[in-house]
Amino acid sequence: MILHGYFRSTSSWRVRIALNLKGISYRDAFRHLRKKEHRTPDFLKINPQGLVPVLELDDSRILTQSLAICEYLDEIIEDPPLLPDNTYLRARARAFAQVIACDIHPVQNLRVLNRLRELGHDEETVTEWARDVIEMGLDAGEALLRPESESRYCFGDTPGLAELCLVPQLGNARRFNAELRWPRLLAIEALCRALPSFEAAAPENQSDADT
Amino acid sequence: MILHGYFRSTSSWRVRIALNLKGISYRDAFRHLRKKEHRTPDFLKINPQGLVPVLELDDSRILTQSLAICEYLDEIIEDPPLLPDNTYLRARARAFAQVIACDIHPVQNLRVLNRLRELGHDEETVTEWARDVIEMGLDAGEALLRPESESRYCFGDTPGLAELCLVPQLGNARRFNAELRWPRLLAIEALCRALPSFEAAAPENQSDADT
Repeated sequence: MILHGYFRSTSSWRVRIALNLKGISYRDAFRHLRKKEHRTPDFLKINPQGLVPVLELDDSRILTQSLAICEYLDEIIEDPPLLPDNTYLRARARAFAQVIACDIHPVQNLRVLNRLRELGHDEETVTEWARDVIEMGLDAGEALLRPESESRYCFGDTPGLAELCLVPQLGNARRFNAELRWPRLLAIEALCRALPSFEAAAPENQSDADT
Repeated sequence: MILHGYFRSTSSWRVRIALNLKGISYRDAFRHLRKKEHRTPDFLKINPQGLVPVLELDDSRILTQSLAICEYLDEIIEDPPLLPDNTYLRARARAFAQVIACDIHPVQNLRVLNRLRELGHDEETVTEWARDVIEMGLDAGEALLRPESESRYCFGDTPGLAELCLVPQLGNARRFNAELRWPRLLAIEALCRALPSFEAAAPENQSDADT
């Protein structure tokens, strides 16, 4: 499989974690977002949305959208599962992932922030926008975990869909100097960062980092 | 079950369609967003994120996030399925839903538009922001369907997760005067709007409409 991604893209980071957790070896095709390598005609042919990540399967078929890709990987390789066994907890884990993937990340990604810059806003306003979105969203994330707070990770004793969204989003929280006021989320992040699957997926460990 | 929603919220609309498709009878608890009824202490106790929709199960347990709720309903009641049987097509259908639920809707929802107003932008700029996000997103949506363009609906011969995101988003496209330049998406919408499950879920048919 080929992962079209970018070291700093948190949605690519999610898929890298999922691939690592599932033990799938893959090849990287980096698309440098600031150089607009995701807007070239050849890439738009692969993904008309012009976004990373894209997972190119061995038969050249294409998958887009990080959560859909992770659920696909979870369906083709059962172990370790990325979602809890229990139907209710599975819905809670998906909801937690979507708080990040729907309500936080798309509202603070490069495209939206660039648009604010085009509207004439300075870097302080842009950063404040991103920070507010992240803080409000992760406040909710912390609160949504409470009923399961005795589990080791978000919704059980192994990391999965919730954590592979959480860890990259906390990375962005730091980039935008958000107030790190979520003890439970940070404790889970620390557990995850100690795992090789998560560490190998970190932006600073990608070969396109700081290019 | 009780659905905490709002007639005009497109994410509540999605869940109404899913409940109708599955033949689940439910009770409405409307939360008027413009009157900030989703920010009251009692509602924040139900959903710390302060967003609709929320599905309250018969045993009072709470589910949030529209896509997670729809997948839950799909898991507890198999027929009719909301996702294709085939693993690859299932990932494509989820990705299509996420183009809308992650990349379009959260960037043009009331919260973001109000924030732009707070930053001093006039209604023209705010509407243009929403319209651009919708047009770019649905352009990609139309392009992403092509390989399956011979199926009746987006990814098969029955409507599901893709359509229950698409129809409400096209409703928003009209509200923001987007250019309706997606023949395939509009044809699928027309098929859906002819179905009682979709029609009963439409904003204008909710008892809180225009309150």
